[in-house]
Amino acid sequence: MDAATLDHTGLRSIDAATGESVGEPFAGHGVGDVDAVCAAAAAAFPTYRATDAEARATFLERIGEEILALGDELIEAACRESGLPRARIEGERGRTVGQLKLFAGVLREGGWMGLRVDPAQPDRAPLPRPDLRLRNVPLGPVAVFGASNFPLAFSTAGGDTASALAAGCPVIVKQHPAHPHTGALVARAIRAAVAATGMPEGTFGDLVGAGNELGGALVADPRIAAVGFTGSRGGGLALVKIAQARAVPIPVYAEMSSINPVVLCPAALASRGAALGAAFVASLTMGAGQFCTNPGLVLAVEGEGLDAFVDAAAAALGEAAAQVMLTQGIHAAYEKGIGALSSHADVTEVARGKVGEGVARGQAAFFSTDAKAFLADAALGHEVFGASSLLVRCADAAELEAVLAAAEGQLTATLQMDEADTDFAARLVPVLELKAGRILVNGWPTGVEVAHAMVHGGPFPATSDGRTTSVGSLAIDRFLRPVSYQNLPDALLPAVLRDGGAGGAPVLHDGKRR
Amino acid sequence: MDAATLDHTGLRSIDAATGESVGEPFAGHGVGDVDAVCAAAAAAFPTYRATDAEARATFLERIGEEILALGDELIEAACRESGLPRARIEGERGRTVGQLKLFAGVLREGGWMGLRVDPAQPDRAPLPRPDLRLRNVPLGPVAVFGASNFPLAFSTAGGDTASALAAGCPVIVKQHPAHPHTGALVARAIRAAVAATGMPEGTFGDLVGAGNELGGALVADPRIAAVGFTGSRGGGLALVKIAQARAVPIPVYAEMSSINPVVLCPAALASRGAALGAAFVASLTMGAGQFCTNPGLVLAVEGEGLDAFVDAAAAALGEAAAQVMLTQGIHAAYEKGIGALSSHADVTEVARGKVGEGVARGQAAFFSTDAKAFLADAALGHEVFGASSLLVRCADAAELEAVLAAAEGQLTATLQMDEADTDFAARLVPVLELKAGRILVNGWPTGVEVAHAMVHGGPFPATSDGRTTSVGSLAIDRFLRPVSYQNLPDALLPAVLRDGGAGGAPVLHDGKRR
Repeated sequence: MDAATLDHTGLRSIDAATGESVGEPFAGHGVGDVDAVCAAAAAAFPTYRATDAEARATFLERIGEEILALGDELIEAACRESGLPRARIEGERGRTVGQLKLFAGVLREGGWMGLRVDPAQPDRAPLPRPDLRLRNVPLGPVAVFGASNFPLAFSTAGGDTASALAAGCPVIVKQHPAHPHTGALVARAIRAAVAATGMPEGTFGDLVGAGNELGGALVADPRIAAVGFTGSRGGGLALVKIAQARAVPIPVYAEMSSINPVVLCPAALASRGAALGAAFVASLTMGAGQFCTNPGLVLAVEGEGLDAFVDAAAAALGEAAAQVMLTQGIHAAYEKGIGALSSHADVTEVARGKVGEGVARGQAAFFSTDAKAFLADAALGHEVFGASSLLVRCADAAELEAVLAAAEGQLTATLQMDEADTDFAARLVPVLELKAGRILVNGWPTGVEVAHAMVHGGPFPATSDGRTTSVGSLAIDRFLRPVSYQNLPDALLPAVLRDGGAGGAPVLHDGKRR
Repeated sequence: MDAATLDHTGLRSIDAATGESVGEPFAGHGVGDVDAVCAAAAAAFPTYRATDAEARATFLERIGEEILALGDELIEAACRESGLPRARIEGERGRTVGQLKLFAGVLREGGWMGLRVDPAQPDRAPLPRPDLRLRNVPLGPVAVFGASNFPLAFSTAGGDTASALAAGCPVIVKQHPAHPHTGALVARAIRAAVAATGMPEGTFGDLVGAGNELGGALVADPRIAAVGFTGSRGGGLALVKIAQARAVPIPVYAEMSSINPVVLCPAALASRGAALGAAFVASLTMGAGQFCTNPGLVLAVEGEGLDAFVDAAAAALGEAAAQVMLTQGIHAAYEKGIGALSSHADVTEVARGKVGEGVARGQAAFFSTDAKAFLADAALGHEVFGASSLLVRCADAAELEAVLAAAEGQLTATLQMDEADTDFAARLVPVLELKAGRILVNGWPTGVEVAHAMVHGGPFPATSDGRTTSVGSLAIDRFLRPVSYQNLPDALLPAVLRDGGAGGAPVLHDGKRR
């Protein structure tokens, strides 16, 4: 997602729909508070990482229970601070609790430890082989930056927090300043779970404050070992720069910017262009378009059905109500992006949604251009965070391929196809594999399943590290590194690496799965 | 390892033992040659990555056969250019061929693909679950920098090349200028294997040249997707900087700098101090000390046996013959490092090896200091590449722990212990897990087994990415990233992800191992 700076620099909880502040100001933190919270995390790390998988699984489940126990106060705070509807926030709470349960299951399954055993071969010539055993260990305290657009699932107890805690890393959350009340409630739930399950106090910490200095100081602190971030390209790259300039550089997993190309294949357009147009608008306008996976780029070859697609999309968009955006700053950035497209010489406005009344109402927008114009101006490939999308009309399949090849790295790429499009689509799959973390057929990119086979990641600038995912069970790998143990006596070996100690976790034994 | 700049800027093959150039000059490359070799790699990538695992396994095995077919010419060239003895180079050839076979086995086993399948749940409420399948795909063309100290096993067809080719990435080797003849022979063997197994021509390329510009231009080329490097800290950090400054940053796996602390536990010292001293010197002086895992730091608590250790080490070192170092530049850097330690106010010279005759003869050295001095001067913790080591005498266990905690990231950490040292050692293991990629008991860090459970990596500055290894089968992960496929029809799915298509490779099916 590409968000602007926030329109409020204080620490008030803002009602997104009215722009009014609600309740008392929050006690915020300054750069001077970073030391204490990092010291607590560092002090907790040796104890926390030594907890066994079952203990951490129980802790994660307890966090979920404590979040549910917050009840309506949490739902109401998140709705008010984000402007998102109740059903969405209730769903997001379920997703957040589900993620915590998923990682509890990951911990119990044990594959995350990456156990390997190569037994000694004392009689090997010319040299005996030592006994070698390997497991993954946690990196250390992790800084997590809450996202504006998922006040629960990508924030205080979101995916980054769940995966880092599962890995055995203490977490320090830099709360997103757009939802301090929501963040404070969730932080309270996590602290309650820490206390209830006997984890060391510094296992979880949080910092509340506007401006960039606080987060920058957190990433620069030598006790922080890795960073999880979901937000703007500018924000993510700033954190990467700070992390790389440290005496000891650390990994930053920043999920930043994606326009999620959707390719309308010829036969699909011919057979169901109008239906695709309506379905596209439903995906485009969901949640005021404020998804990292929003379909911001549509590609099609001129031909039968494309007019029907455009007409149906225009009709549906014309009926789309304006929606409250997350913050006035994000709305202002959206308007600026829309303005740039509207005034672009090579871009035509296809349709706009309804005008809204009140602050921060996002009016959806759909534009059109051709491949030559798109290829000539890289700015047309930049994300406009919100319900905005650009159709690129291509003369033929080769031109469409050229547009895809020129596009930046993406979280997702989608093919809308009929069976008759198989050859057309098959040519594109290898191109899309190099561009995106997830390839979809006949779906829409919005809606990211929390699963084992999910990749919510992708080549730069979709993320700062395309080798990983921030959604799904594979995300735990981001906070681990392998350690090899050579000829350690049982008394020193981690229990899981002793003979028979894996407790059902998979082991690669002399190169063979057990 | 920490090497200096080379003492020759031309492209002559130098006899390390005499400093004389041998044979005709090599045709070298300039920055202007980078484009063509990268274009060839990029052109080969779509075809090469689409080869199946069996085809790539056969290709890797064929490279090994072609290397063996080079016969004595290769052994003689490598001995002459490195100054290393024949038995060592023959062993290194065996290791190199063994690594290629290991990755052939990894390819056939299939775990490297990371296959995951989450079947669709069409009836799930409130929303159906899509069909999600995941596999790892190769990153793209990889630049590999040959190492000075392993002319075969960490160079042209070394571990980085083997793991990248196994992953499906074309490789461009920047040959180490200290062994152009060896590199040219191995490159010929790889090209013969490319031709014999029908791989696209650009699957392998190489560049020969002195100076830093050539390698820098290679890393900056937008078609390069990742970098493997073994060499000096300065060299590795320079490549990291170039990689991070690109429009699209890429991962750099640089193995750079490590002094490999060896802890002599009290009971072991008391029971076998003298034997440890002799064994230590054997490890220290092996290969003129030119190993990334050379024991450059020895830690012990003052007490019974330490004098015996020091006396035995001094006696053994006094008998140690000078050895030819890899290049005159590396020898000069070694002498400079020794000089700095010799003249350090808080450092005592324990013993030196024998003086040598002829160019680039490395005279081994063993120094001693105390913990307070070590903690006061970070320079005492920097690598001196060659047969040099520093004993740090600690007043008690707490001081020894403080020295370990202050040390930089390491490839290895070693405990010499008796059973009576178990409590002493057990306190240190958690500290060492955070400092090093491999922990050894009662061995010496030199000698890195090529195995499944090996980690030759470690926290910064041992490597630029402590989440990985450059030796052993896990190294293939460095050149892969996961892609998720949502609702793809069989016709578009990669064959290995179709139902029943895994061919025996492990699959995580709905979160369960199959």
